[in-house]
Amino acid sequence: MKIKDIGEFGLIDRITKKPKNKDILVGIGDDAAVVKIEGLQVLTTDCLVEGDHFRTDWFTPKQIGMKAIEINVSDIAAMGAVPKYVLVSLALPIYLDVEFVEELYEGMWKVCDKYKIEIIGGNMTHCNQIVISITVTGEVEKKNLCLRNGANPSDFILVSDQIGNGRAGLRLHQENLNGFEQVKKSYLEPKANLDKALKIAPFVSSMEDISDGLASEIRHICNESRCGAIIYKDKIPISDQARDVARKLREDEYDYALYGGEDFELVFTVTKNNLDKVNGILVGEITKNKRIKLSIDGKEKIISKSGFDHFSNGI
Amino acid sequence: MKIKDIGEFGLIDRITKKPKNKDILVGIGDDAAVVKIEGLQVLTTDCLVEGDHFRTDWFTPKQIGMKAIEINVSDIAAMGAVPKYVLVSLALPIYLDVEFVEELYEGMWKVCDKYKIEIIGGNMTHCNQIVISITVTGEVEKKNLCLRNGANPSDFILVSDQIGNGRAGLRLHQENLNGFEQVKKSYLEPKANLDKALKIAPFVSSMEDISDGLASEIRHICNESRCGAIIYKDKIPISDQARDVARKLREDEYDYALYGGEDFELVFTVTKNNLDKVNGILVGEITKNKRIKLSIDGKEKIISKSGFDHFSNGI
Repeated sequence: MKIKDIGEFGLIDRITKKPKNKDILVGIGDDAAVVKIEGLQVLTTDCLVEGDHFRTDWFTPKQIGMKAIEINVSDIAAMGAVPKYVLVSLALPIYLDVEFVEELYEGMWKVCDKYKIEIIGGNMTHCNQIVISITVTGEVEKKNLCLRNGANPSDFILVSDQIGNGRAGLRLHQENLNGFEQVKKSYLEPKANLDKALKIAPFVSSMEDISDGLASEIRHICNESRCGAIIYKDKIPISDQARDVARKLREDEYDYALYGGEDFELVFTVTKNNLDKVNGILVGEITKNKRIKLSIDGKEKIISKSGFDHFSNGI
Repeated sequence: MKIKDIGEFGLIDRITKKPKNKDILVGIGDDAAVVKIEGLQVLTTDCLVEGDHFRTDWFTPKQIGMKAIEINVSDIAAMGAVPKYVLVSLALPIYLDVEFVEELYEGMWKVCDKYKIEIIGGNMTHCNQIVISITVTGEVEKKNLCLRNGANPSDFILVSDQIGNGRAGLRLHQENLNGFEQVKKSYLEPKANLDKALKIAPFVSSMEDISDGLASEIRHICNESRCGAIIYKDKIPISDQARDVARKLREDEYDYALYGGEDFELVFTVTKNNLDKVNGILVGEITKNKRIKLSIDGKEKIISKSGFDHFSNGI
């Protein structure tokens, strides 16, 4: 059955769950949702567009739904905040199967359940491409709030784990290569690092999730903190599998890590005093000089590329 | 200049304003926005899609931006809530002029200024069609909260003003007719009725904005309140101009009001005791019988149409 034939009401019943959290006074079904909030609230919105952020021949509908929630939770996590509520705005081709939408929601709910968050509202309209706009709200204690503008010269720059798999997985799909199942899966099913983020939040001077490549994220931090950075190329942690993919495609695995994206690991800065309080891999230092430099075998190169371009030609 | 050429950072600078409200701790430019919230929070999201909700040969970019905010403020108003913060998620064709986006934002900021609300975040990505997803949050006191499920049999149904102009204006554009400038403008520049909504909110048993036609909105209220309604056809307030448009196109002006949409007036229910406390035009009554009926010259007809279909073929 196509969504055109089922009608708005039939579809809403299939994708809605009864609120569990007692702070949700009104969920899906009114002009707006109503929730009880305590303290500081964090809000983010991000959008997945068919052909740009996913392809339906690579991703299952469930994986698309999962990714849509994970990438937004990742933004909340990068603030040091706890995610709470989700709004889903869908623009869908009218001849899409109802099952597609149900599976999309199945994926969204699966990730929501994992993080104990809930979809409280949304809307659905039609469009020639699938466009999934998600808003996630969260709560944060002021002492845990991690902004981009808190880095200072001589802070260390760390990443939470290996990076480069996001771009490596994308390249495998683009080139239609066999094997490398784990890398492919890490591209198709990215995960927010909420637990890691909450653990380190009280100790970092700035934090971001790596959605657009390490160089681009460090540039964000430096722009907002009015400083620069030096990244030690040989310290950038790249998985053996991502290196193998790069070798196979005759590409540079450091390009994957620096200018790729969709790794969703965290990049953060800490003072020397806090270095032993956080888990992570040291990849660089914040500098007073406002340039972003890459140190290669003791030589410094200025990084001018700014990572993944949202207006590039997509996937 | 095209947005493809200006890059993300250049564009953000052109469309961002410094937060005025001191409760905004972090605005545009981090992974998420951070705001201080008091009490109950209301959240809504709605989406405008090119070709479905607007056409760029009918609407100026500024009018599209204005409409995007007004329709979301309208949803917040219909809850009896005061709007506060806005998130903007844009999916745009890469060859769109930068000026288009600037004017779009000019329209959005104009309406935000009117309601003393602010855009605190968003994202931008690319898509073949223009898709504008807006999330608006608001605050509400529990005693003012107006839900769809509060109507009771024998409550009166009122609308806040004349309706039908939204559909009449759309039809004028579709048929490319000259004249009727006021009706056309009311379609191109719909207005949320925030002041009216806040004034009547403490006294109504249910309320909605009329985005999808009166019959459809009353059906929402009846579905959620587990009751029915009778609408008196001859009481439905339709402007002389909308009647003239219908006559010229040999259409039925009551179809415009009942099944049209985009009027953004309010429909609400009140008990007999509260009838003198609200301004509005009485158009019907809530009934125990769950059907939605139209009373025409003393005869009753069951309304089966459900108003504007979001999966219809657009404009």
